Amino acid sequence: MTDIGSDRVERRRRATSVEVARLAGVSQSAVSRCFTVGASIAPDTREKVMTAARALGYRPNVLARGLVGSRTDLVGVVVGNLDTPFEAFLFDRLTDALAAIGKKPLVVRSDPAGDVARPLLAALDYQVDGVVVLAGGVTRATVDSAKLLGVPLILYGFVTTADLVDCVCCDNAAGARLVADALLASRYRRAAYVTGRSSAFSEGERRAAFLDRMARGGRPVVRVVEGDYSHAGGMRAGLALLSAAARPDAVFCGNDATAFGVIDAARRRLGLRVPEDVAVIGFDDVPMAAWPGYDLTTVRNPVDAIVATVRDMLARRLADAGEPYVVHRTTPTLVRRGSAAV
Amino acid sequence: MTDIGSDRVERRRRATSVEVARLAGVSQSAVSRCFTVGASIAPDTREKVMTAARALGYRPNVLARGLVGSRTDLVGVVVGNLDTPFEAFLFDRLTDALAAIGKKPLVVRSDPAGDVARPLLAALDYQVDGVVVLAGGVTRATVDSAKLLGVPLILYGFVTTADLVDCVCCDNAAGARLVADALLASRYRRAAYVTGRSSAFSEGERRAAFLDRMARGGRPVVRVVEGDYSHAGGMRAGLALLSAAARPDAVFCGNDATAFGVIDAARRRLGLRVPEDVAVIGFDDVPMAAWPGYDLTTVRNPVDAIVATVRDMLARRLADAGEPYVVHRTTPTLVRRGSAAV
Repeated sequence: MTDIGSDRVERRRRATSVEVARLAGVSQSAVSRCFTVGASIAPDTREKVMTAARALGYRPNVLARGLVGSRTDLVGVVVGNLDTPFEAFLFDRLTDALAAIGKKPLVVRSDPAGDVARPLLAALDYQVDGVVVLAGGVTRATVDSAKLLGVPLILYGFVTTADLVDCVCCDNAAGARLVADALLASRYRRAAYVTGRSSAFSEGERRAAFLDRMARGGRPVVRVVEGDYSHAGGMRAGLALLSAAARPDAVFCGNDATAFGVIDAARRRLGLRVPEDVAVIGFDDVPMAAWPGYDLTTVRNPVDAIVATVRDMLARRLADAGEPYVVHRTTPTLVRRGSAAV
Repeated sequence: MTDIGSDRVERRRRATSVEVARLAGVSQSAVSRCFTVGASIAPDTREKVMTAARALGYRPNVLARGLVGSRTDLVGVVVGNLDTPFEAFLFDRLTDALAAIGKKPLVVRSDPAGDVARPLLAALDYQVDGVVVLAGGVTRATVDSAKLLGVPLILYGFVTTADLVDCVCCDNAAGARLVADALLASRYRRAAYVTGRSSAFSEGERRAAFLDRMARGGRPVVRVVEGDYSHAGGMRAGLALLSAAARPDAVFCGNDATAFGVIDAARRRLGLRVPEDVAVIGFDDVPMAAWPGYDLTTVRNPVDAIVATVRDMLARRLADAGEPYVVHRTTPTLVRRGSAAV
């Protein structure tokens, strides 16, 4: 449709399946079968076709499938900042799982704080079979665009009102309550909370449940300080909290990166002992949380379960677009390590 | 070409530009201009077209461009394990830089130890404008396949003999010599080396240059232990080296993740002080190296320079496929922090 004019370049013309068939001395249908997954073809015919295809530099055009109404096997993956341990971990596992079912992830970057409308529409331009949104919220209008095109949309870490879109999200409130209950049963008396990015859906759920449970348990949270899911934000929050006269003796953090920052502030900047002087607890259980350098007590946000659920939702939706929409909450667990005596 | 039979699903038929033009009451050419970057169109015409396009769920088909010989704006990015800090960091910055020039990264996973022929051919199936290989070596046959199709191929961290393909690679030998020179000028007398994955191109260069320079400086390396670029591998190597009777007083590691493992083994498992009892030095300078918890002295493998070079190589190659191939070596620097008194 579009001609990009001055942007156009000379490209070697691609060989066609007719030319491959001619060189191989086989039928065009044999060439087609040779490049179709699951199609039957005699080994010596396949050998002839592959030799001719190699000689001509021929590759079947997968994208052409998208133009005739079938699958491209592309899946749009909308991501924010892969420079944070949890997103990199989740993205790594998700792309592995997609590759295992023959899907190719088309990466579209989003502003984690913004709506994903633009990145999502960019993915839809490429005739993707579906879109998985790992970061960013969506509006009703954006969901409607995807639905109009019949493209399955799966949201991670964000839950919309029912029957609009498939959602996978950790049961954040349950995770925060696990931490509150562990602290209420411990010797720690003065708990503080370092938030994640305030616009994040998960952040609201984690904070509300933690503050509520601690208050009901008779040890209301003594201070809430703003973080931004980064190590640097955790350092700043940790310094603010732990250099105050009446410092907290336990700090629950919006994610693991924040908790690593609080631990570094406590140990390396203020000379405090973790967990003797202050307990630090994270959320996510990224691989680094198990490294002895941090040995972080944290809530496990189960990446394998998230990825398996996304994969299955996508497969189900591709098989039957009319199924009811699902909101799946994964179950968190508390992983007790050395950063908190709980 | 291929019909995937039982795999086929019902998908809502896409609206055409003709239908959008009719609903908007404008010409088809106006619809086309509205979706062409840089084309001129009156604001009220654009408004009519966008309203009609939204109502019909119309999106221009970017992939169709690929079928008529022009650009798709897809760039294949072949990656290994994004669960390692350096690869995640590099991938994050590269996808940002590609997005800034309007390219969409199509992610193809590779076995870091294997040839990238299969993942590369998978990317070529999607009519990508180019392929950037971040992990894995390539054979001559693989390079030839890409050249036959006229698709630019850019390799990171791997250098082939000249005039075959564009390559970007850290000057690994220079980086290793910076470490050797710093150690030779220091009070440390017994240096050890923990390798990266032995099959990696960079590993061979780093090891050879470090061993050579230390030997020439009169303090030959006392022991070489195998690592695998992972924190766990670094822990194992660190325990093996530092629990020996005649332990080294300095350990240079194939990458930062390995160095974090050696530091954790020294401090948390063996009760040694870093840098007083043992110096630990890494390679890459991932963001985490600056965290006070590790405060790692390391060789900076300049990600911003790598990414800018890849972006410029791709643009140059797309503008003129006939340019001579380039091997670009980025210049490393030594970043002195607290893990080594050098």
